[in-house]
Amino acid sequence: MSPSPPAVAPDDTLIATLGFELLELGPERATGRFSAADRVKQPLGLVHGGAFAAFAESLASAATYEAVASNGLIAVGLSNHTSFLRPVLDGTVHAEGRRRHHGRTTWLWDVDFTDDEGRLCAVSRVTLAVRPAPGG
Amino acid sequence: MSPSPPAVAPDDTLIATLGFELLELGPERATGRFSAADRVKQPLGLVHGGAFAAFAESLASAATYEAVASNGLIAVGLSNHTSFLRPVLDGTVHAEGRRRHHGRTTWLWDVDFTDDEGRLCAVSRVTLAVRPAPGG
Amino acid sequence: MSPSPPAVAPDDTLIATLGFELLELGPERATGRFSAADRVKQPLGLVHGGAFAAFAESLASAATYEAVASNGLIAVGLSNHTSFLRPVLDGTVHAEGRRRHHGRTTWLWDVDFTDDEGRLCAVSRVTLAVRPAPGG
Amino acid sequence: MSPSPPAVAPDDTLIATLGFELLELGPERATGRFSAADRVKQPLGLVHGGAFAAFAESLASAATYEAVASNGLIAVGLSNHTSFLRPVLDGTVHAEGRRRHHGRTTWLWDVDFTDDEGRLCAVSRVTLAVRPAPGG
Repeated sequence: MSPSPPAVAPDDTLIATLGFELLELGPERATGRFSAADRVKQPLGLVHGGAFAAFAESLASAATYEAVASNGLIAVGLSNHTSFLRPVLDGTVHAEGRRRHHGRTTWLWDVDFTDDEGRLCAVSRVTLAVRPAPGG
Repeated sequence: MSPSPPAVAPDDTLIATLGFELLELGPERATGRFSAADRVKQPLGLVHGGAFAAFAESLASAATYEAVASNGLIAVGLSNHTSFLRPVLDGTVHAEGRRRHHGRTTWLWDVDFTDDEGRLCAVSRVTLAVRPAPGG
Repeated sequence: MSPSPPAVAPDDTLIATLGFELLELGPERATGRFSAADRVKQPLGLVHGGAFAAFAESLASAATYEAVASNGLIAVGLSNHTSFLRPVLDGTVHAEGRRRHHGRTTWLWDVDFTDDEGRLCAVSRVTLAVRPAPGG
Repeated sequence: MSPSPPAVAPDDTLIATLGFELLELGPERATGRFSAADRVKQPLGLVHGGAFAAFAESLASAATYEAVASNGLIAVGLSNHTSFLRPVLDGTVHAEGRRRHHGRTTWLWDVDFTDDEGRLCAVSRVTLAVRPAPGG
């Protein structure tokens, strides 16, 4: 991983491609949302489980990066555990992340997903490694 | 979940949007791949962790669905646990899924991801519920 | 699983063998604790990661069982995901479980572990299947 | 964690308390077993889910420790994800661990559990941090 890969223009990333919106990116709390549009669905018309997992990964990574970048550190995903509790067919999926741990080398976030009626639809637990930036 | 949601045209789903290719969908083994293009990357230029999780979910769900649909059953994701082992910057990501369990009500798949050099980059464990199709 | 296995006397189970205490077993909240004694430690003197996982499994299973048994149902563990955040060397480990989901067929609990100073040491996510009791 | 905690006599640890036997502890493969005795069961007579999780944690930690200790490193559990596939009522539980990844800072093992008929009963994925020994 020595040479940094070329950065990707924000509009071209997975985050933009799937219509993910990151709203608040604080060091202990982060929020966001995405529309239950076709591009995040599986063929039967439900929001794809991978959309929840990918959103949680984005939210936790971005919030951790914001918190540690000024110290010359980066956040690298270690694992993502997402449980699917209730199908979402339409409307907006709302995400709220809560940091549960910030150790010297690992951070852990819980991300809850609710639908427009406030019902819990999925929960993710994201573990990130915090490391010196390459070349930093 | 009583009324079935409207199906999504294959070209509009998350699977197509992210360029996922499902190649083999057998009852015990499934394979696929996706290109490490910008649309599956995070801003720093690495393949997004959520792309691995989403691909594994697609592969395991589709293979299980193929295996059980003729019995009037569907597969619904229960959980997805993905670990990220090595960053991928370019080339193709290759996925191989292996069914580890097929009980009356749950199936479990392990999906391994390798890069073009055959190095293990991520591993997913996907648990699916198998249930009667709505209205089936 | 048709014939029921012989029940185990409470004092002989894993729960008693490891000194686990289940205190409150409500349908939405459950608490308990165990002493950081040698019998729950690994050779280097830290509480064994498996002790946290096993305690969470006990707590979530028992609380779910209490909630559903009167309906002729039982709770069967599907998966346990435990993350270890801070080593515990002595004192008491305190557990608090919170039910996050109770569907028709699966329940999900989060269990947090703290030490005597209230510091978060481990977190578990336990998924249980709820099914008719055999022969019930 | 600066001062090392007092080591625990092998016969007093969780491993001995639950009757866990670690047989082979190689750098890429590890095996062991335990008897489905009352001390690893829950009250209904089944092997407790926590016994599988705890055994996997022991096996992966011990094998990793054996592999890295001569380099002044230790292994510390980060997470344990165990899925329960088939209840075990009696006989011996057999465990086989396979190392899936050994990075500079994390190792990952898969541990499969089978009963005396060779049927898969549980699977664990164990992630360990590898770090310099305290005071090392």
